[in-house]
Amino acid sequence: MDFDTLDRIRSNDHRYLSRVISQIENNAEIPDTFFQQLHDHANQALRLGVTGPPGAGKSTLTDQLIQQIISDGKSVGVVAVDPTSPFTGGSLLGDRVRMNHYIWDDNVFIRSMASHGDLGGLARKAQDVGDILATSGKDVVIFETVGVGQGELDVAKAVDLTIVVLVPESGDEVQLMKAGLIEIADIFVVNKSDRQGADRLAQSLKSILHSTTKKDHLEPPIYNTSADRNEGISELYKGLTNLTEVMIEKGLMSQKYSDRHRNRVLNLIQDRLLGKFWSQERLDQLEASVHNLSMTNESPYKVVKRLLDSANE
Amino acid sequence: MDFDTLDRIRSNDHRYLSRVISQIENNAEIPDTFFQQLHDHANQALRLGVTGPPGAGKSTLTDQLIQQIISDGKSVGVVAVDPTSPFTGGSLLGDRVRMNHYIWDDNVFIRSMASHGDLGGLARKAQDVGDILATSGKDVVIFETVGVGQGELDVAKAVDLTIVVLVPESGDEVQLMKAGLIEIADIFVVNKSDRQGADRLAQSLKSILHSTTKKDHLEPPIYNTSADRNEGISELYKGLTNLTEVMIEKGLMSQKYSDRHRNRVLNLIQDRLLGKFWSQERLDQLEASVHNLSMTNESPYKVVKRLLDSANE
Repeated sequence: MDFDTLDRIRSNDHRYLSRVISQIENNAEIPDTFFQQLHDHANQALRLGVTGPPGAGKSTLTDQLIQQIISDGKSVGVVAVDPTSPFTGGSLLGDRVRMNHYIWDDNVFIRSMASHGDLGGLARKAQDVGDILATSGKDVVIFETVGVGQGELDVAKAVDLTIVVLVPESGDEVQLMKAGLIEIADIFVVNKSDRQGADRLAQSLKSILHSTTKKDHLEPPIYNTSADRNEGISELYKGLTNLTEVMIEKGLMSQKYSDRHRNRVLNLIQDRLLGKFWSQERLDQLEASVHNLSMTNESPYKVVKRLLDSANE
Repeated sequence: MDFDTLDRIRSNDHRYLSRVISQIENNAEIPDTFFQQLHDHANQALRLGVTGPPGAGKSTLTDQLIQQIISDGKSVGVVAVDPTSPFTGGSLLGDRVRMNHYIWDDNVFIRSMASHGDLGGLARKAQDVGDILATSGKDVVIFETVGVGQGELDVAKAVDLTIVVLVPESGDEVQLMKAGLIEIADIFVVNKSDRQGADRLAQSLKSILHSTTKKDHLEPPIYNTSADRNEGISELYKGLTNLTEVMIEKGLMSQKYSDRHRNRVLNLIQDRLLGKFWSQERLDQLEASVHNLSMTNESPYKVVKRLLDSANE
């Protein structure tokens, strides 16, 4: 990784972008100076999160947003964050056929990233990949995630604006609140609005948002769409553009940027401290303790004390 | 906290148990030696997880399980893990009326715990609370969580056996796989089975489990229940008891116990290392960097380097 790498990224060489992203995904040894350089050269790309429960049609909606963005004369990078099962590895989503539509288009870059069970690490990598796409000159970077709880929260912290996509079958409002989706959404989309219950859901949402949105906070707008029929999409895009401008004017965008900065520092410190602590020797000590458990039945607190005491010697 | 505390816990004084649990929940300064003593005196309580999407009727099902357990001559502690919104604080679930049913019964202890946005810390505290209830003599400890992704995974790591509760409206099997629920379940319950689609869901589940369960692994049984009508509950309880015995015979219970031990050590080390690193001075340095961002636009990697370099001096 060197200045040549940086130049190639800035030249928007898509094949090269993909290779760099693979290295990040596979935890290759990349010096921090590279990321600092990347950061210094990244443009002010708008980072969007598209999230929501499985089956809400997020992929189709994202495709429609891509169309709107390029019709608007802008370029876009999409990072589809796959909730790879933390227990078996391997991506569970096979619906990335659409990548082929844009394979020769320099204005559209699409890429999947798997979590390999490490959702925290994925959020950090997504931020770095966002920087790479911003440095390549993309105007918009979209992070599309399947709603699996903590993954959604991590992505919400990595972007400037979060779109939560629901469908009429998404269930009642109490369930939505329990899932924490109300808090992270800047925009709500009720997709598959050709189905029964779409208006009802939009109405319930409106009521909850009305009563829960704090003073001086923006109440998230709600859009009804049928992404597979390309209905409601241009209204959504206009609303998205408008909200972005309002957030910039009110200083909310810089607030988000500050929060992202803080979270990235916290996450990087955690990675570094744990990476440094868990030497092979200490990992072996832990495994030995696990192995001898049936004989010793020692408490985890005892093992922790032993490990920390030897670290402090 | 002293030996008197330990004795009072062992004597099953419910009011006292509640006070100790509050201290844990509120991050009171409790020496590790207390937890070691607790661990050494904890009986072999069976730790059950009850999880699944919101609206599946988990509370009602847990109530029915409590009845089965005490009819079986055993005692039970229930820890209801509330997915407190990480952004606003405060519990979103108000349905703990049932606690009042058992207020004078020494064989049943019920308690809520909120996450206060710290899901990782909650998993650790849940383990400690499990130890307290086991030390008080409870035969079974149930951790009931609302399905919010990572929270479910954390609780699955904290127990011996996980019951995933679904309802006919839970959606198709692809969604279930995406949500990671297939991997963590030892038992599936299709609740509200009086509704349409119950048999269909049980059948789909059976097919997936058949094809995804690895060789030498136990295929999770599926039970249809209507918890609010007390239907299918005794079959579920019998199945649960039977599965527990099979898991003990096959050494799977000690495997779970080993995994729990390992996870607790990893989580405690993380807590300790981060707690030690983030002094008020370093937190202030981080905030200063955030505050000056509009002027400096420095990268998070630069801040991390600065913090780590000064730590290593």
